[in-house]
Formats: sequence, structure tokens, C-alpha cells
Amino acid sequence: VEPNTIQIDEQRLSASFQALSEIGSTPGGGVHRPALSDADLRARAWFKEETERAGLVYTMDGAGNQSAILGSARADAPHVLLGSHLDTVPNGGRFDGALGLSAALEVLRVIKEAGCCLPVSLEAINLTDEEGTHVGELGSQALTGKLSLEDLDNPAAGVDALDLGLCRIGITRESVLSSQCSPRVIAGYLELHIEQGPLLEESGWDIGIVTGIVGIRRFQLTFRGRADHAGTAPLGRRRDAGRAASGFVVSAWEAVFRDYLDCAFNVGDMRFRPGAYNVVPEAVTVRVEYRASDDERLDILEETLIRIAGRQGEAVGVEVQVGSIERFSPVSMSGEVQQILAVEAKALGLRYTSLPSKAVHDAQSFADICPTGMIFIPSVGGRSHAPSEFSAWQDCLNGANLLLHATVRLASGNSTA
Amino acid sequence: VEPNTIQIDEQRLSASFQALSEIGSTPGGGVHRPALSDADLRARAWFKEETERAGLVYTMDGAGNQSAILGSARADAPHVLLGSHLDTVPNGGRFDGALGLSAALEVLRVIKEAGCCLPVSLEAINLTDEEGTHVGELGSQALTGKLSLEDLDNPAAGVDALDLGLCRIGITRESVLSSQCSPRVIAGYLELHIEQGPLLEESGWDIGIVTGIVGIRRFQLTFRGRADHAGTAPLGRRRDAGRAASGFVVSAWEAVFRDYLDCAFNVGDMRFRPGAYNVVPEAVTVRVEYRASDDERLDILEETLIRIAGRQGEAVGVEVQVGSIERFSPVSMSGEVQQILAVEAKALGLRYTSLPSKAVHDAQSFADICPTGMIFIPSVGGRSHAPSEFSAWQDCLNGANLLLHATVRLASGNSTA
Repeated sequence: VEPNTIQIDEQRLSASFQALSEIGSTPGGGVHRPALSDADLRARAWFKEETERAGLVYTMDGAGNQSAILGSARADAPHVLLGSHLDTVPNGGRFDGALGLSAALEVLRVIKEAGCCLPVSLEAINLTDEEGTHVGELGSQALTGKLSLEDLDNPAAGVDALDLGLCRIGITRESVLSSQCSPRVIAGYLELHIEQGPLLEESGWDIGIVTGIVGIRRFQLTFRGRADHAGTAPLGRRRDAGRAASGFVVSAWEAVFRDYLDCAFNVGDMRFRPGAYNVVPEAVTVRVEYRASDDERLDILEETLIRIAGRQGEAVGVEVQVGSIERFSPVSMSGEVQQILAVEAKALGLRYTSLPSKAVHDAQSFADICPTGMIFIPSVGGRSHAPSEFSAWQDCLNGANLLLHATVRLASGNSTA
Repeated sequence: VEPNTIQIDEQRLSASFQALSEIGSTPGGGVHRPALSDADLRARAWFKEETERAGLVYTMDGAGNQSAILGSARADAPHVLLGSHLDTVPNGGRFDGALGLSAALEVLRVIKEAGCCLPVSLEAINLTDEEGTHVGELGSQALTGKLSLEDLDNPAAGVDALDLGLCRIGITRESVLSSQCSPRVIAGYLELHIEQGPLLEESGWDIGIVTGIVGIRRFQLTFRGRADHAGTAPLGRRRDAGRAASGFVVSAWEAVFRDYLDCAFNVGDMRFRPGAYNVVPEAVTVRVEYRASDDERLDILEETLIRIAGRQGEAVGVEVQVGSIERFSPVSMSGEVQQILAVEAKALGLRYTSLPSKAVHDAQSFADICPTGMIFIPSVGGRSHAPSEFSAWQDCLNGANLLLHATVRLASGNSTA
């Protein structure tokens, strides 16, 4: 079989994508499938079934990463991974993660049918909890030896929720920590994903070749004031944790918009205690996330945010505690893989450009252990992490075909140089 | 028996107060006993048991108000009510409500033992949900015919939580609405309470005679923006509901501090949806409460707050919805009862002053149907609705003795004029 003539089976890719869209679907056309929830478990069952139906080998490691493997004829051949994730943010969209995994499975099916003899094994892999319902990129970090005991001891929804989730798929925190790579050698990692930003669509590109992934940091700020009666405590004497936390949101946003427009910033959640109409808030926890393309910039922004929080707390007599900071360093994608993607995109007649990713992806866990690359397709209006997340079907299909051809090229060891 | 020689049994009052302090007690020395919770049900069981042990008649009406009755020898005698509540705010203090009810029970015990022949029946009454876990002042409003179907259809924690709570004490929304007064005539209402503000303690008064109770209004604001990816959505194009809601808290606080220092204002809770690190908040609900001593002032402040919310929403492209507004009008306490309290306080050698209440109390439900009065005792540091809420025991005892003597005077129909 001549690799250049193979292509994605559009009907079959569409069927896979549609099946996933219906697992955890929400009224607004979105998907609610947080990692290790009921819906995620149904999606995982679907993946296993599809893998077996396609005649591929199914495995799951100690971190819950599920693989569909198309083995090489060569014994002990290294693996090229085509990854993404089946979990979503709460009330998210249909494309984020699911498109990449539908395409990865389809690439394996096409190559299996074409009877290509590759010197590597191919592996479509569903990486656990990319979105951080418990621990962001848990699966890919565990697999690449980046996950620490501390990460697992401070999950976003608490240790009990994490343990329960792991238990539901038959794993434990211990098995997660000991799941690194073994027994295979990883020779490459590719991921197809929606851009989740407006750049490709606005400029009319078919494909974005990712140059690197921004670093991201997250922490929880706790403002601790004093509970008081909301009628009788004089306004000027209150130590109102809600007022300090709100002041932080307003001031931090202004500072970022003024001085850090190259970075991203979000306060995704605030929780008030005790949370009653007639009690001055005693404690408010605030979830802060920020992103930048280098660590130095992240350090400076981090310092700025913590200083603003301290100042807002001080103004209201409220104590500020900074929780443990979750850090993902910025990484570069492989130059060689970017070159392969450019050559194959051109061969397929696709208009492509290069751009950095402002969203984090499991690809960043792999960048330091193997040649790693990512393909972006346009997101309509740049909308993502919401039910209105959408990409045109032709763009999805283009991305899947590029993933197919780049996989064959990377797996064949044929560099384009 | 000469009424002037009777006094509260300090040991017995202390035992009642201590028993209540232990029901739903929290580590910090506080009490968590929201209306119709497990702890509240245990407190209600305690009240019934104490009533029967004291040889008083126990009844409960369709709104869950529990009464201990010391009947008059005269058939169809009107009732003088000594009220307060056993429920607390979440993680509240030991004194708010419990002191008033311990004292009310003790007043009935003392009068019963003294064998006083009064022309009225005396009733110590535990009024349901004063703090508004479901519907603020549910019990006293139902009893005095002020509760509407609409109030019951929009409870703070939702209709299911209300129905469940009512079911646990064997009543329904229907029985609540039909529980008005019958079959008795109410001839007076007295309530002993902690001040919950710093004024009495700071000026060294033993007793505050309440002149009136501020009006209070509550509503829920919902800011509706758009969920977006927290990394890829350009900062300036987001419709961030959390930013709009935080802007409201900051601006509203500043406006109240500048122009409405005679009023009270609180944002007790904010809830973010979906509430994840990496999703721009789509919707935030904000719980707003404000208080003033006349309705006109409340109208003006209400208009100001809604205007600020609209402006903050508009600035960020976020829609603002104002939920139904819960209203308690300001009321005056009876001049006659204030006079009785002053005369009896003087006779007991207590230093007293007059002051308005910035906290709402069930007393306001009764003010338009019978002579109504309230006694305040000092709150240390003005702290309330918190575990650190505290009043000196001598002050509690003073308040109970004043309640006893004012009750006898009011019940005897002996005006002081």
C-alpha cells in the first residue's frame, strides 16, 4: 500500500465522534463529562468496546490511561502515541478531546486495514483527567514520570473525591504513581485538537501547526475574615472576606489587562463560607489560573497577583493564604515534527500556519521524552469549554487526514529533511 | 405572692441555656442549628420535654411554632407571648435566640411556682425559622397572617429543601398558610435578645429598650455571561460573570459606605457556574441584603444597588437578573411596653437606654397586632452570627429578670401611667 493514497473513512470517523457527543450530552448541545464521573466511565467503556471491535489490543495502565494498540511486526518495537482525552470540563463542548481521540482511533483502523508494515507500534491513548477535575493532566504526567506524591495529595475536589474516582476504574493513588511508561519505549507523540481560540478562523487557515504550549499555574487563595451579623456590625469595622476577594478579582483583572496582555488570567470559582444572606462572609476561597509562554513571565505575574491579594486583604483586615501552586512549564514542540506536519499539510493541499497554544494539552508532558507535535483546526468564534464550542466538519476531517499522514511519516522514520 | 419579690432561678435558667448550647455545638464554641435540620429537631424535642417536665401545656401549630402554655384561670383569656427562636444561622453563636427562649420558659416556671393569678394565659413560643434557612421569620409571619403563598414558593434553599424540612416535623406548606393565630387572642408579645451590636457594651449600659426594628430586604442577583476557555479567549472579549459580580460587590460597598451609612448592607454569598479553574465563569448568583429604618430609605438604596449591578454587568457584556425581593418593613415597638420596661428596669436597679434594632426579630411580625416590646442585653464586641458571639452571664440574668417583671406587669394589665 502506498501511504500517500490512504485516507480517513469519513463515515466511520463521524460515527465515532457522534457516539462520544451523546455520552454526557447536555441540553445546549454540549457535553458534561468530568474525569471519572458516570459519563466519563461510559465514554471509557465505549473506547474499550471500539478498540476491541476494531481488532486492536486494549490495555489500561495504573493511571487509568486507556490504549488501543496496533502492534508492529517487530518485537519490542517502540510506540508512537496518538493521544487526547475523553474527559471534559463541567458543561463543556463536544470537540475538546473527543475529536482527537476519535481521529486517533480512526488513524489506527485505516493503517490496520491498509496493511502498512511499520517499524513501530501505534497507540491511540485516552489520557486520564486532562481537564483537572482532580489533578490536571494526571494521566500524561503519571505516564511520563512527572507526577509527584504532593500533586496527588492536593486534588482540586479533595482527596476523597479523587480516591473514589480512581476506585471506580479499579486503580489507586499508589498505582497512579507507579505507572511510568513501562514496559514500552515511546518514540513519538501526536495530538489533533481544536484551537479553542479565534486566530485560525479569523485568518482563514485550515490548519495550525503548534510551535509550543504556554505554561500554566493554578492556586487557591483563601481570604479569612470574620463572620459578623450583617445588620448590626458597623460597616467600617467588618473584616469582610467577600469584599477582599471581590477587590482582588477587580484589581487583578485590571493589572493583567494593563501590563500582562500576553498572558492569560482567570478566576474560575469563589466559594463563600458560611454563605448566608445575613452573615458577613468569614472565609472565601478563590481559584486563580494564569498562563504565559515563559517561566520568567509566569514568575513575575505570580508575584503581582499575590501582592494584589495581600493588598486587598490588608485594606479590609482580612488574612490571605496562598495554597500550593500547581505548575506546568511552557514547552516547545519538536522542530522535526513541525517540519513533517508542514510537508504533509502541503501535500494534502491544506493552508497552514504556525502558532503557539494558549491552552495546555497532554502533549506538553511528552515534549521532553520524545518528538512531540500538535495539530490545531479552527474553532468557530474561538469558543471553547462551553456548549457552543464548534468546528466545521470539513476542518475536523482535514485534521484527521493530516494526523494520519503525519503518523505514517513519523512512524516510518522518514524525516522530511 | 407579691410580684416584686419573685425572681429568676439562676441555676435552672443556666441549665436550660447550657443544654441548648450543646445541641448542634461546633468546635469553636458556636452552634450550627439551621431551621429544621437534625440539630434543630433535637432542640425542638428538648423544648417539648422541658415544657412537659415543668407542668406546662405543650402545643404546636401548623407553622411548627411550639408553645409552652401557663393557662389563666379565666376561660378564653387572651395570651401574652414570650417569644424567640431555637434555630441559628450556619455556624452561629449560642446566644442568638436560645437565650430568649431559655428565659421565656424560666419566666413561666417562676410564675407558675409563685402561684400568681393572672388574667391572661402566658405562652413561651419557639418561632420557626427566624433566621431564614428557608423563609425568614416563617413562624411569626404565618402566625400573624403575614406570610404569602409567594413567600413559600421561593424559599432560600429551594422548595424541595423546605418541603422536606416541614415534613420532618409533620407539617406542610398548606398547614403553614392556615395557621394564623387561631384559636387564641394575642394580648402582647415580649422578647429578650442579645443586642448583636457593640453599642450597649461600649457605653456600659445593662439593658437596651428597643424603640423599633429596621426594615430588611433580600434578593438574589444573577450575572449571566458566557463560558469560555480560560487560556484562549482574549481577555478583552470575555463576558466574565465573575468579574461583573465582583465589580458589583466593590462598587456597591463603596456607595453604601459613602452615602448610606445609616443603612446596613451585605453580600453573604456568591456562587460560580461552572466553577472550574480553566473556564471563564458563565453565571454567578449573588445574595444581597440591606437594612434601613424606613421604607423610603430602603426604596432608594434598592434602586441604587440595582443600578450599580446593571452598570457593572453592562461594562463586561454580562446580563443581570434581579430575583424576587423579600421585604420586611421597619416597625416601631409599643410606647406603652417601652414605658413598662423602663419602670421595671429602674426598679431592678439596671442602667438602661433606648435604641433601635438593626437586626430583625420575630417581634416585628407582632407589632401591628398587639403591644410588642424587646429587651436587649450587651453583646461583647458586638459579635454575633459567629461562634465568638458572647454575653456575660450577669447580663443574661438581668435580662431574664426584666423579662419576668415586665411580663407580670403587662399580664396584670397594670399600665405604668
